[in-house]
Amino acid sequence: TLAEMTAEQFQSNALDGVNVVITAGPTREAIDPVRYISNHSSGKMGFALAQAAVEAGASVTLIAGPVALVSPERVKRIDVDSAEQMHQAAMDSLANCDMFIGAAAVADYRPAQIVEQKIKKSADSMSIELVRNPDIIAAVASHPQRPFTIGFAAETQDVISYAKGKLAKKKLDLIIANDVSDSEIGFNSDNNAVTVIWNGGEKAMALASKQQLSRCLLSEIAEKYKNSRAT
Amino acid sequence: TLAEMTAEQFQSNALDGVNVVITAGPTREAIDPVRYISNHSSGKMGFALAQAAVEAGASVTLIAGPVALVSPERVKRIDVDSAEQMHQAAMDSLANCDMFIGAAAVADYRPAQIVEQKIKKSADSMSIELVRNPDIIAAVASHPQRPFTIGFAAETQDVISYAKGKLAKKKLDLIIANDVSDSEIGFNSDNNAVTVIWNGGEKAMALASKQQLSRCLLSEIAEKYKNSRAT
Repeated sequence: TLAEMTAEQFQSNALDGVNVVITAGPTREAIDPVRYISNHSSGKMGFALAQAAVEAGASVTLIAGPVALVSPERVKRIDVDSAEQMHQAAMDSLANCDMFIGAAAVADYRPAQIVEQKIKKSADSMSIELVRNPDIIAAVASHPQRPFTIGFAAETQDVISYAKGKLAKKKLDLIIANDVSDSEIGFNSDNNAVTVIWNGGEKAMALASKQQLSRCLLSEIAEKYKNSRAT
Repeated sequence: TLAEMTAEQFQSNALDGVNVVITAGPTREAIDPVRYISNHSSGKMGFALAQAAVEAGASVTLIAGPVALVSPERVKRIDVDSAEQMHQAAMDSLANCDMFIGAAAVADYRPAQIVEQKIKKSADSMSIELVRNPDIIAAVASHPQRPFTIGFAAETQDVISYAKGKLAKKKLDLIIANDVSDSEIGFNSDNNAVTVIWNGGEKAMALASKQQLSRCLLSEIAEKYKNSRAT
């Protein structure tokens, strides 16, 4: 099949000598010592991309939130819990990073305060005050040592439109859009279908295993990356 | 050792013919389609208790929140996500329940509204309004078809004092107290050390694997259960 041919060709050396940093999984934002806010990201897509990048010859650093996944071989894994920790690890990685893929589902907000002891329930209702987390992918794309920067847009409505807005606003090189309202694809599924969008074009990628899709995605990404370096 | 002797003796038939319902794991309370509030419960303690109860001859129903654990053999497992779903499953189980062990770390609060589409970030801060979840263990203990009811108190300070208060207030038969501020024991650990408390007495159980501890715990529980039926 075309997908297999692409994978074969790609596996060889498409990213030889390229330093790739990938974030994956959810983040957890502590409310108190036992409670937290998180999201349904399994980390499977980011881990599959890390595997595919290694196969393509890249040196891969994988910054992983709390997930139940085994690291691909030859990947340097950095485990983090919160968005602030992931932000710090991402910033630290930029000194030696040619390409950054933000596949993590980073919590946009965290509790304004982490309570040190377990909160005792008493009132019939309460509210948690939240503050914005650092925008990791935007911080990477606007950094002086800016790598080739690829983001994800996991949305439940107007997916392509939101993704294009995010591409422009955050000054990304590429964005990968997927519709997480469809349980056949997205967060906890082993399969995914996405649209790759860049400034001036887009390409839909049909439903496939996250592993197979990652190879096709990285083939596309490697081509765009080389073009960006050639100009 | 004494623990092994207890387990041997216990394994035989201490709960022959007894219908035991056990809740385990955390609950997840949806904020929107991708975000949720949860807690660090691994479900290991509840699953170990289910295993030990089966070994002791009980018919076991395990109501499990989202956990990454395989069911013990011969256990009837019911998977749930939210506290409201766990409450419903627990109430449904009472028609045929002699003993109820609430080992789940049920979320005390849930978001007042579940937003149907992924919330777009915009403001620098926001707040989530929370409302109280049903108190499952209290509902079980005050039910007309009340089983022998055992609760857990996972605390980070004044553990025994809080546990005694909970035992009385919720009209439990037994409560098992553990200090989750100690990372050697508690939520994600494979080991635990607890204190069993009843009206008029308490018994500390030293650090052991959750599996071993579960056998000792069920031996103690079975004795108290038989006494309660004899009176």
